[in-house]
Amino acid sequence: MILINGEPGMAIRAQDRGLLLGDGLFETLRVQAGRPQLWRYHWQRLTQGLNRLGFPELAEGQLLEEIARVGGNADCMVRLTVTRGEGPRGYAPPENPTVTRIVSGGPALEMPKPKSIRSLTLGWADVPIGINPALAGLKHTSRLEHVLARRSWRSGWDEAILCDALGRVVSATQGNLWLRRGQKLITPPVRESGIAGTRRAWVLDHAADFGFEGVEAYPDPAEVRGADALYVSNARIGMTPANLAEADKAVPAWQDDPLYPMGIALHEAD
Amino acid sequence: MILINGEPGMAIRAQDRGLLLGDGLFETLRVQAGRPQLWRYHWQRLTQGLNRLGFPELAEGQLLEEIARVGGNADCMVRLTVTRGEGPRGYAPPENPTVTRIVSGGPALEMPKPKSIRSLTLGWADVPIGINPALAGLKHTSRLEHVLARRSWRSGWDEAILCDALGRVVSATQGNLWLRRGQKLITPPVRESGIAGTRRAWVLDHAADFGFEGVEAYPDPAEVRGADALYVSNARIGMTPANLAEADKAVPAWQDDPLYPMGIALHEAD
Repeated sequence: MILINGEPGMAIRAQDRGLLLGDGLFETLRVQAGRPQLWRYHWQRLTQGLNRLGFPELAEGQLLEEIARVGGNADCMVRLTVTRGEGPRGYAPPENPTVTRIVSGGPALEMPKPKSIRSLTLGWADVPIGINPALAGLKHTSRLEHVLARRSWRSGWDEAILCDALGRVVSATQGNLWLRRGQKLITPPVRESGIAGTRRAWVLDHAADFGFEGVEAYPDPAEVRGADALYVSNARIGMTPANLAEADKAVPAWQDDPLYPMGIALHEAD
Repeated sequence: MILINGEPGMAIRAQDRGLLLGDGLFETLRVQAGRPQLWRYHWQRLTQGLNRLGFPELAEGQLLEEIARVGGNADCMVRLTVTRGEGPRGYAPPENPTVTRIVSGGPALEMPKPKSIRSLTLGWADVPIGINPALAGLKHTSRLEHVLARRSWRSGWDEAILCDALGRVVSATQGNLWLRRGQKLITPPVRESGIAGTRRAWVLDHAADFGFEGVEAYPDPAEVRGADALYVSNARIGMTPANLAEADKAVPAWQDDPLYPMGIALHEAD
């Protein structure tokens, strides 16, 4: 089911700026029994994005109601997309845009049992991610860089590390990247590029509860290779261990990982 | 009139990757009596883009026929948009995409008489443009950076200069930027960011015919300020003189500008 501005539908106007210019934002929500997990993190990122792009405010209750209608009672992923709607041709946005809201559900999702989660095999994407402080952090729909990065994955990879145009390690392709070094849990900043993941924000907020120190810093590739462990986080997989494809390193079972208690807590957080 | 995959229509499927991810390309064509001006430049850029993004080839004759149907006999701007079509959710593109072609016309265009063209007032956009060699040059639909740059224009500006994240002058917001210094006609490269404009390509190809040397180089802001003259080029305005909003410099009438003969030739080129 897809709701477009609250009405079931399948079609968007061909003049929508989301289509013509990538002028939109989205959220990928893990919905359980109609309720999006970590909603307050999604809502905060979305409202920051609306504000930075100059979109009008949205009614939170209306969005939650639409998400619940689409999500139903199954555990599934729901995508919420908000575009600047229609406008005159050209980059100039209309002064008082009427946004387009699209809420679409995916197939019911069998969440893997935490104990059965296996380590992701990580490559290095050979497509750089642009640096732009004005867009950094936002989950906007101008995502062609990520599409190209995803296209660059080689056979056998489950994920790939993205670097920016200056060679700094930024993230995974479909989630945020984490390095563990002792009790430090390091993730690249999202002020110049990358996406401010909701699970990333939750982990930074809660790392101390589990005896870790959350740190935002650019690791260089050698530090990635030398980390005690690597992880990728996103709404679908939570926090998942990862291992470099190039490494010949055994990775302990997830339930033996020092981060496992936090992974379980994130899995169950709402 | 809008043609979607050759059929008159107004609606795009809500799962189109052009809408969800900015996964598309476009061309803005000045069409005269059904024929796009400088089509071979547009077609070359489009086919390069299709190739770099991994889209299937398009039939040139079919596109030209659709452009003619939409353009009719008036002088108007036509936008051709090509997206990767529908696919499974997520960044991963489908292996064999079926692209969506959208050809849409604008209102008939009264082209200004070359002699009546007045100088554009140029500001400096305060939003940087990301650096990404994989996307540089392409006229793709992930254009949120340009939307933000356009939004940053101040009152009284007709255009604004964009710089990249390293502070290098890249282009105007809606066209390419040119500096004249003696017989040199300088425009920034488009290998790391920016769009390879069709008029830009034509000018580089033809500058020597008019006694100028076309040069691709990054000017620093001081060189922009110290240039003998500035110009902006795009499909709608051709090559148009420009003047910095901050400058207190008289700009000669266009017909007294050394570039006027080339401007006229570009205006009439096909």
